[in-house]
Amino acid sequence: MPDFAAPDISQLETFPNPKPGRDYTIEIICPEFTSLCPKTGQPDFGTITYRYTPGAVCIELKSLKLYLQRFRNVGSFYEAVTNRLMDDFVAAIAPVKFELIGAFTARGGITTSVKLNYEAGK
Amino acid sequence: MPDFAAPDISQLETFPNPKPGRDYTIEIICPEFTSLCPKTGQPDFGTITYRYTPGAVCIELKSLKLYLQRFRNVGSFYEAVTNRLMDDFVAAIAPVKFELIGAFTARGGITTSVKLNYEAGK
Amino acid sequence: MPDFAAPDISQLETFPNPKPGRDYTIEIICPEFTSLCPKTGQPDFGTITYRYTPGAVCIELKSLKLYLQRFRNVGSFYEAVTNRLMDDFVAAIAPVKFELIGAFTARGGITTSVKLNYEAGK
Amino acid sequence: MPDFAAPDISQLETFPNPKPGRDYTIEIICPEFTSLCPKTGQPDFGTITYRYTPGAVCIELKSLKLYLQRFRNVGSFYEAVTNRLMDDFVAAIAPVKFELIGAFTARGGITTSVKLNYEAGK
Amino acid sequence: MPDFAAPDISQLETFPNPKPGRDYTIEIICPEFTSLCPKTGQPDFGTITYRYTPGAVCIELKSLKLYLQRFRNVGSFYEAVTNRLMDDFVAAIAPVKFELIGAFTARGGITTSVKLNYEAGK
Amino acid sequence: MPDFAAPDISQLETFPNPKPGRDYTIEIICPEFTSLCPKTGQPDFGTITYRYTPGAVCIELKSLKLYLQRFRNVGSFYEAVTNRLMDDFVAAIAPVKFELIGAFTARGGITTSVKLNYEAGK
Amino acid sequence: MPDFAAPDISQLETFPNPKPGRDYTIEIICPEFTSLCPKTGQPDFGTITYRYTPGAVCIELKSLKLYLQRFRNVGSFYEAVTNRLMDDFVAAIAPVKFELIGAFTARGGITTSVKLNYEAGK
Amino acid sequence: MPDFAAPDISQLETFPNPKPGRDYTIEIICPEFTSLCPKTGQPDFGTITYRYTPGAVCIELKSLKLYLQRFRNVGSFYEAVTNRLMDDFVAAIAPVKFELIGAFTARGGITTSVKLNYEAGK
Amino acid sequence: MPDFAAPDISQLETFPNPKPGRDYTIEIICPEFTSLCPKTGQPDFGTITYRYTPGAVCIELKSLKLYLQRFRNVGSFYEAVTNRLMDDFVAAIAPVKFELIGAFTARGGITTSVKLNYEAGK
Amino acid sequence: MPDFAAPDISQLETFPNPKPGRDYTIEIICPEFTSLCPKTGQPDFGTITYRYTPGAVCIELKSLKLYLQRFRNVGSFYEAVTNRLMDDFVAAIAPVKFELIGAFTARGGITTSVKLNYEAGK
Repeated sequence: MPDFAAPDISQLETFPNPKPGRDYTIEIICPEFTSLCPKTGQPDFGTITYRYTPGAVCIELKSLKLYLQRFRNVGSFYEAVTNRLMDDFVAAIAPVKFELIGAFTARGGITTSVKLNYEAGK
Repeated sequence: MPDFAAPDISQLETFPNPKPGRDYTIEIICPEFTSLCPKTGQPDFGTITYRYTPGAVCIELKSLKLYLQRFRNVGSFYEAVTNRLMDDFVAAIAPVKFELIGAFTARGGITTSVKLNYEAGK
Repeated sequence: MPDFAAPDISQLETFPNPKPGRDYTIEIICPEFTSLCPKTGQPDFGTITYRYTPGAVCIELKSLKLYLQRFRNVGSFYEAVTNRLMDDFVAAIAPVKFELIGAFTARGGITTSVKLNYEAGK
Repeated sequence: MPDFAAPDISQLETFPNPKPGRDYTIEIICPEFTSLCPKTGQPDFGTITYRYTPGAVCIELKSLKLYLQRFRNVGSFYEAVTNRLMDDFVAAIAPVKFELIGAFTARGGITTSVKLNYEAGK
Repeated sequence: MPDFAAPDISQLETFPNPKPGRDYTIEIICPEFTSLCPKTGQPDFGTITYRYTPGAVCIELKSLKLYLQRFRNVGSFYEAVTNRLMDDFVAAIAPVKFELIGAFTARGGITTSVKLNYEAGK
Repeated sequence: MPDFAAPDISQLETFPNPKPGRDYTIEIICPEFTSLCPKTGQPDFGTITYRYTPGAVCIELKSLKLYLQRFRNVGSFYEAVTNRLMDDFVAAIAPVKFELIGAFTARGGITTSVKLNYEAGK
Repeated sequence: MPDFAAPDISQLETFPNPKPGRDYTIEIICPEFTSLCPKTGQPDFGTITYRYTPGAVCIELKSLKLYLQRFRNVGSFYEAVTNRLMDDFVAAIAPVKFELIGAFTARGGITTSVKLNYEAGK
Repeated sequence: MPDFAAPDISQLETFPNPKPGRDYTIEIICPEFTSLCPKTGQPDFGTITYRYTPGAVCIELKSLKLYLQRFRNVGSFYEAVTNRLMDDFVAAIAPVKFELIGAFTARGGITTSVKLNYEAGK
Repeated sequence: MPDFAAPDISQLETFPNPKPGRDYTIEIICPEFTSLCPKTGQPDFGTITYRYTPGAVCIELKSLKLYLQRFRNVGSFYEAVTNRLMDDFVAAIAPVKFELIGAFTARGGITTSVKLNYEAGK
Repeated sequence: MPDFAAPDISQLETFPNPKPGRDYTIEIICPEFTSLCPKTGQPDFGTITYRYTPGAVCIELKSLKLYLQRFRNVGSFYEAVTNRLMDDFVAAIAPVKFELIGAFTARGGITTSVKLNYEAGK
């Protein structure tokens, strides 16, 4: 069985934006995100949505999938993991605009989602 | 069986906001809130929604759940309990922005909801 | 069997607003309102919605329910009864802001609703 | 204002079944039924559905409406009132087959419905 | 203004069943039926559905439409008018099998429908 | 403009059933059927559904489409045209089992559909 | 505040079945049931549905509500509490037929429901 | 770019049924099937559903996907391709029971689906 | 972080069926199941539904949750893992009747589900 | 079988805009787009939506269909192919305004869409 190493920003591969000067939007919905609760070690499940305008490069989808899979055995609060996803993405892709939403399934009868926005140069 | 003590603001645990300068939103939906009517002693049921932008700290979810559970045997009007939930949250978390909605199930054929907003420094 | 006396503003009990300085909204939906048509004596049925920002006091829900029940055998046009509901509520509660909507079921294939707004000091 | 006398089976007017030998079905849905709880005197609200095959006569609709309106100030349990509605209808109309359903709105967070069936000669 | 004469069975024109020996079904839905309440003179509105297996002849649709329009100023109970529609149709068309449903809009808060079935030789 | 000749059974091309001994079902839905009303000359529109088990041959779809298109300027009652469609199909394809449904759009406020069934050797 | 004593079968009040020989059905839906998990002491929430044909007596609704409220601070597995609800109801009411369904909200990402049936003399 | 060779039954890999004696059902839905019309060369699109009870072996999903992809540049009628899919599957897997449905998107305004069933030893 | 050991039947804890002679049904829906594809090492996601009539014992829910979580890093085909889930459950619980459904999310555009049934003594 | 040559802008035929000065919108939805992943050679599937205000000319639909079909065996990232579709369309048609959306089916549990906007003279 594969060994899920720690997720690393170096996993995020890119390819040149095929139309660098154009202001357009790419939406990527990842409903199979799972990580672990840092307090209890129990699995968390959620849907991560990326919505971004590329700068010089675009994210390569399979590399994003493999990067997200690495969180499978990582313990992290919702707020920390969504902020890290945003930071890693911004560092790797340098998007012009970027919105990230993490919507997690109920735990203890409570449902949580986190929404973050980024705009280059602001 | 556990003894449900009175809810106390000291129950609300926090952890450092992983990205303090960032303006982002956390939404927490709690559909299993129950307290007692102060006039009749009958149980009330409702959904409490927290929607906030964190300042220095975030709310720890399990502590919020345990805090809300303590209202199980507390008698309080809808208006009083929602205002208390807001006051306790603001005191414990000092959010930048905060909206709280309490939507309660019908009593005597009448449905009630209470909506409150907070903004730091206003 | 109870005798439904005429509805009276004195029925509307209040309790102190638990957070008098705060600008928040309370919504109360009453789908079981019934009165009589003053022309035909036939029953009318409707949903009354109260949406208000409290001043010094809040409305006590059970007293509102009992007050509304007293309209059961009162004959009144839609326009008259909704205006009276607003007047009584403003006199008893002195809300900061107040919206009242009366939505009545179809009669002769025709559906009617009445909407009124109030703002203190205007 | 009209005086709602006690409902009486004599209110149920009929007219001759225009096709007495034919086996056909008439469905009448009455969503504006209201009576009083015999324990608390509080109003109850519900939808009464009649579904019957006529014998010698049919129910006249306006008389049924006026008969049902008379329950407005009658105190009766759901089970008693639905059984009485069935008994009165059977006595007045002598239907060949008859199903009656009373579906009442929630009280104390609890919703109740009662369903009865009748077949002549059984 | 057109003068709506009384509806008459002679209005129902037919044309030869193009396949007399075949057992097949024709469904005709007429949502624009209107007649008058014989007690109040108020308009009634409903949808009449014909579902039949033709014998020697089929109903001509325009003639059916014109026939149904003649009920516009006819006062008739729901039960009488649906039974007459069935009788006229059976007399004019002699179908092998036939189902007729009249579904009328609410009157005085009460909704009524009537359903009839016919089978030749039974 | 193309001249639409009369539809002809010779238009219905076939190809050998690729699995003649197997009992399977082919469903073909044609929502773009149009013909003319033989009384008024007005266009009729409908959806024709073929559902059949092939015998020695299957219907070739493009030939069916071209055949159905030829009804564009043909005047025919719904009952006649659906029976003809069935007869032509049975004659050309000799299916093992066959169901044909013609569902036509409203005309003069009236909606009609016709349903026919065929089974070889019955 | 009221003291929630242990639920007791003696709480279940009855009144005489108004039509003892008639075979009819009463459905009672209680969406505000809450008890405690016997392992963790955490609150559970669910909807209890009663569907029964009465024998000599019917259940009085307010007594059922007060009885169910007493489970508020009782620790019990889903299977045990639904079986107890059934046993208590059968002992108190002796219904002719009875179906009880307990549908509970998700815990640890897992949703559970329990369904039981009873028939007198079987 | 890859060269799509002709689909071949040898592509269908199997693995031993993990529970050979048990009668259970596996459903596989493939909404991304595409082939070419043999008459026009135009692409066809459809959803292929496999529903089978395995015998000695199960189908390996990735091999099924690669096999189905090979139809991308194959010209075949709907009836032929679905029958071939069934024959290849039966030959490779020898299921106990098997149902295959091919539902294709509209062509020339006409929608077609084909349904086939297989049972071993019949 | 916790170490997810291999799932083991010994994890499945039971408690005595509170009503052993009664024929009733328990349904448990687990939408957060995840395991690994044995060929690619990629994560699979699915919903496992248990529907059973208990014999002498019932499954303890938290132990079922912890047992299912252990599949997180296990590589197994859908058919193998669902059959193992059934075998383990039958061995641990000895239910009277049992249905298990595994419905997995799409892989390579293909969606798969597996359904198994068990009845004691058959 | 037809040989799918490389798609070429020269395939996009036009006809004169029948109302050149008018600002109106044409929406074209193409749900049967398929190309190949440039990394894996696996087929991709998606829906391409064109929404444009024509300038001097409009796109001829059949030429657009044939042009899009040529991508069947082309390997290209989602971002590249959607940008190319936009560039080709702008070059061939010179629309006044133009929005293009490519919505692709899930791959590895991840769904992607790309949205581009163009306005002449900006």
